[in-house]
Amino acid sequence: MTTTQHARSAQPVTERTAEQAVLIVHGSDRTGIVAAISTVLARHRANIVSLDQYSDDPRGGAFFQRTVFSRPDLKAALPQLEKDLQEQLATGFGLTYALREVATAKRVAIFASKADHCLLDLLWRHQRGELPITVSMVISNHTDTADEVRSFGIPFFHVPSPAGPDKSAAEAEHLKLLAGNVDFIVLARYMQIISGDFIDRVGVPIINIHHSFLPAFIGAGPYAKAKQRGVKLVGATAHYVTEDLDEGPIIEQDVVRVNHADTVAELQRRGADVERDVLSRAVLWHSQDRVIRHGNQTIVFAS
Amino acid sequence: MTTTQHARSAQPVTERTAEQAVLIVHGSDRTGIVAAISTVLARHRANIVSLDQYSDDPRGGAFFQRTVFSRPDLKAALPQLEKDLQEQLATGFGLTYALREVATAKRVAIFASKADHCLLDLLWRHQRGELPITVSMVISNHTDTADEVRSFGIPFFHVPSPAGPDKSAAEAEHLKLLAGNVDFIVLARYMQIISGDFIDRVGVPIINIHHSFLPAFIGAGPYAKAKQRGVKLVGATAHYVTEDLDEGPIIEQDVVRVNHADTVAELQRRGADVERDVLSRAVLWHSQDRVIRHGNQTIVFAS
Amino acid sequence: MTTTQHARSAQPVTERTAEQAVLIVHGSDRTGIVAAISTVLARHRANIVSLDQYSDDPRGGAFFQRTVFSRPDLKAALPQLEKDLQEQLATGFGLTYALREVATAKRVAIFASKADHCLLDLLWRHQRGELPITVSMVISNHTDTADEVRSFGIPFFHVPSPAGPDKSAAEAEHLKLLAGNVDFIVLARYMQIISGDFIDRVGVPIINIHHSFLPAFIGAGPYAKAKQRGVKLVGATAHYVTEDLDEGPIIEQDVVRVNHADTVAELQRRGADVERDVLSRAVLWHSQDRVIRHGNQTIVFAS
Amino acid sequence: MTTTQHARSAQPVTERTAEQAVLIVHGSDRTGIVAAISTVLARHRANIVSLDQYSDDPRGGAFFQRTVFSRPDLKAALPQLEKDLQEQLATGFGLTYALREVATAKRVAIFASKADHCLLDLLWRHQRGELPITVSMVISNHTDTADEVRSFGIPFFHVPSPAGPDKSAAEAEHLKLLAGNVDFIVLARYMQIISGDFIDRVGVPIINIHHSFLPAFIGAGPYAKAKQRGVKLVGATAHYVTEDLDEGPIIEQDVVRVNHADTVAELQRRGADVERDVLSRAVLWHSQDRVIRHGNQTIVFAS
Repeated sequence: MTTTQHARSAQPVTERTAEQAVLIVHGSDRTGIVAAISTVLARHRANIVSLDQYSDDPRGGAFFQRTVFSRPDLKAALPQLEKDLQEQLATGFGLTYALREVATAKRVAIFASKADHCLLDLLWRHQRGELPITVSMVISNHTDTADEVRSFGIPFFHVPSPAGPDKSAAEAEHLKLLAGNVDFIVLARYMQIISGDFIDRVGVPIINIHHSFLPAFIGAGPYAKAKQRGVKLVGATAHYVTEDLDEGPIIEQDVVRVNHADTVAELQRRGADVERDVLSRAVLWHSQDRVIRHGNQTIVFAS
Repeated sequence: MTTTQHARSAQPVTERTAEQAVLIVHGSDRTGIVAAISTVLARHRANIVSLDQYSDDPRGGAFFQRTVFSRPDLKAALPQLEKDLQEQLATGFGLTYALREVATAKRVAIFASKADHCLLDLLWRHQRGELPITVSMVISNHTDTADEVRSFGIPFFHVPSPAGPDKSAAEAEHLKLLAGNVDFIVLARYMQIISGDFIDRVGVPIINIHHSFLPAFIGAGPYAKAKQRGVKLVGATAHYVTEDLDEGPIIEQDVVRVNHADTVAELQRRGADVERDVLSRAVLWHSQDRVIRHGNQTIVFAS
Repeated sequence: MTTTQHARSAQPVTERTAEQAVLIVHGSDRTGIVAAISTVLARHRANIVSLDQYSDDPRGGAFFQRTVFSRPDLKAALPQLEKDLQEQLATGFGLTYALREVATAKRVAIFASKADHCLLDLLWRHQRGELPITVSMVISNHTDTADEVRSFGIPFFHVPSPAGPDKSAAEAEHLKLLAGNVDFIVLARYMQIISGDFIDRVGVPIINIHHSFLPAFIGAGPYAKAKQRGVKLVGATAHYVTEDLDEGPIIEQDVVRVNHADTVAELQRRGADVERDVLSRAVLWHSQDRVIRHGNQTIVFAS
Repeated sequence: MTTTQHARSAQPVTERTAEQAVLIVHGSDRTGIVAAISTVLARHRANIVSLDQYSDDPRGGAFFQRTVFSRPDLKAALPQLEKDLQEQLATGFGLTYALREVATAKRVAIFASKADHCLLDLLWRHQRGELPITVSMVISNHTDTADEVRSFGIPFFHVPSPAGPDKSAAEAEHLKLLAGNVDFIVLARYMQIISGDFIDRVGVPIINIHHSFLPAFIGAGPYAKAKQRGVKLVGATAHYVTEDLDEGPIIEQDVVRVNHADTVAELQRRGADVERDVLSRAVLWHSQDRVIRHGNQTIVFAS
């Protein structure tokens, strides 16, 4: 059978990234942290490729650092390197850290409903090699996008959303599909409420795209509200999902110009372009460990 | 005494605009309005320089048209032309219209407080010949900008704002200064509440610049709220003032990118650039009769 | 056989646009043109939905007008209406005009090579109903995108490009495929030179997307040149194709911010988003008769 | 005599920046540089406030780092700290470095001609405390802006530009005024050619604002050329001045949307806003040591 089949391109591990790792460190700022990190790396003959550092208050606030480094025979060297970092950073400075080989792509599940523009844009970008992720599955409460998703070689699961407020059965099925299979979740215009219980139990970050410039137009129907208010720009916001609807830490936002002649449908058309762009940047940055949550805010070491 | 004195440049009446008039028409849409307007103009040998037209619903909604036309001996021809328009548009179609010679600049009073960036940007653009307005006066509840304003050759009036909620004495003085002298008012970061009574009695449009992307961050301290919420863009909104604070019809909005490292002071610095740009565009468009209010919205035939 | 098949959605003819036509008029400006056009329309009980007018010099330059009007029983009324327009505009004022029912979508052939981002974005927008066009065919000198294109239900023709400068055989095949079948052509990152002879013989407008902000970086390898020059923005330009490479009338341009850390590959990734956005706007505007060529420039009555 | 006099505000040295220094390091990349720098700083009990690092090729390219650090009693500690840096960085790694107390503002001379928008915008921003610079003087070949400049409390020197190509007498006078008094020069729409001889002898960086998006429209009259070409965006470029006109390393660029109806004068008006914004960002970043020249390119660690 000759069916149209997109190649399931894992992000190619280039010569450039094969021997690279990314290290995220955060905690209370103290003098000497950068020196401690870079000294451990230098001792292991790891060369720093890029380094972003931020302290929210130089006189004793919070400290954040993202370091990409490279080293021949990275895999062999990592265990001892991590042990030394553990000793220096966790034990010595009481910092939190995370270490990941760049070649190890994060695994994502994408949730969608009927609208396909954000979903397809992510799949396209992934296929083009723009997103260093593995798309483990797509889950939808509708079947509209099933064929399209599967043509990319990606599993599609249909989990209908029951009428009524109790989504526990559907969420239980979600949890069964996701367990052990994903590192984060993307809600690509998934039009269902996510329960606090689900957020707790799934245990991985969830990124949502909201179709307005938050905190303007929280909740349903933001384009209709925007038309009603007569705004001259409409926007989109990618944020981490928390129990409070549309109140989670913002990762990225953007806007596009509109005018009085634009109908609500036209606002949706223009906004759809912003939604897919904003979501793709948020997914890219999250997958590259460029986003650090800090309370209800984010530190974004954007590329 | 040699004092630094900006020339009080009225907008130069160029050869191009000397014989031009602008006609605004709005009301209920019916077939034949454009033909009626353009036929009157053609009969008076007036050439249409530009024409913008908008109907919010082609099957019987509201109709808006802005027409700029030119004619030799414009001034002499206008009375009869207006009489014919009156007959055709007001009597025939039941439309509202306004006719203005382009060479007749609108007169504006600018209200300011301590912050000078929006005020000075307007004065400086006016001096450069960018704004076809006459600045009749600047009114402030502080004296900080008095010398600077007067160096542009513009009268400055200090009307202190009394403590407490009752601003009626100050507003009475405002009304005395404004009466008969202005065609519209600009609040250039004027940090005082305007009463509904004042709005009613002053009888001319009032444009305000709010230092956020409305409807996000209504009220005081929007930059602090923006920092708190962790937004990735900050913006500004120019709108007509109504009794409901920050709820009036929006004329123009814009945003600028910020990030986690920006302090509230830095948001203010970046936002100040957006404020002055947005306000200057709103003032330009209003002064060129490009903005038509329609309920709580605006039709903007932007240049 | 169950193959993934995109529905070949013709742009839905909505109730709104079913009875609409668009009229383009241009020529030498004279007093009374707008009145003449709108009087003919009013006499035929056609209601003007939108009207854009521009004169490049109010004292005797070129005149351009785009008018959208609606009328019950449009199709029946059009022949007589066109006859009257012909008499008034062509005979009376010596103007050029074009009249098209909005429901009659323009037919387009898309030329592509290996890069698929512009091609797929057009097909996907068309499928979503964003572009009022009929995609008659895709022609490529490579076969990479064949399956993907056909999954949208659109014919794909592979016409290899011969080595050497003589493309006449391939162009002859192009002309055979296109003859009578298309109203315009889009070069969606088609990496082959188009001969002046082809432009003459094909007789329909050709839109190209150039991957730089023209006139910067004309010719091949613009992103490498941009990296070399150290620019801080990269862009894309949609233009009509003329015999002079990259010198045709510009329809639309846009840019995106880049920095020193971006490699040429990264510039290409960022630029690809701009290319597809700019091209889709140019195609939308062209398909809605919003673009009028005037010498080496365009009048764009953009939505 | 009461003359209008702007306070000559030096950038206020805030509590925050009083004890901070900025360190720029660049040269050939080697493993261990970050560790060496941060270890010297930690040994001196200096806390890193922000750190930006970039290597153009992780396998042996060029290395660039900007570090801001703070320390109580900074001034007393600097001599020994610098000695240690010298030993580690210059002697050990063969790197180039520069160290500056943040409280020590760079001194600038601004060159202007008749156009005042870029000049005044810099003076305003400086007065508002936005630019950490000391404006030592303004030099102009015209006297138009003399009063305005002096009202800011800044010395104004009129150095007429002689007719003919030989500017050596004027340049000699420039050099006399500048010698020992400035750390960099800004050409704020200064409409005179700068000779290679002057660039060599003045010995400080020179920043120019060009009124186009370079490399498009090099040389004189870029707005007229932009109108002629029919571009849909116009821009501005801030760059370091080299002997090759408009070919120096680009610091910052931006654009604004225009359309067919904009005259050359309108392009100039819209472009003027971009020019002053772009120039002010370039001056801010240069004054904060955020810009490192590297061949004909710049590394910009932008805020």
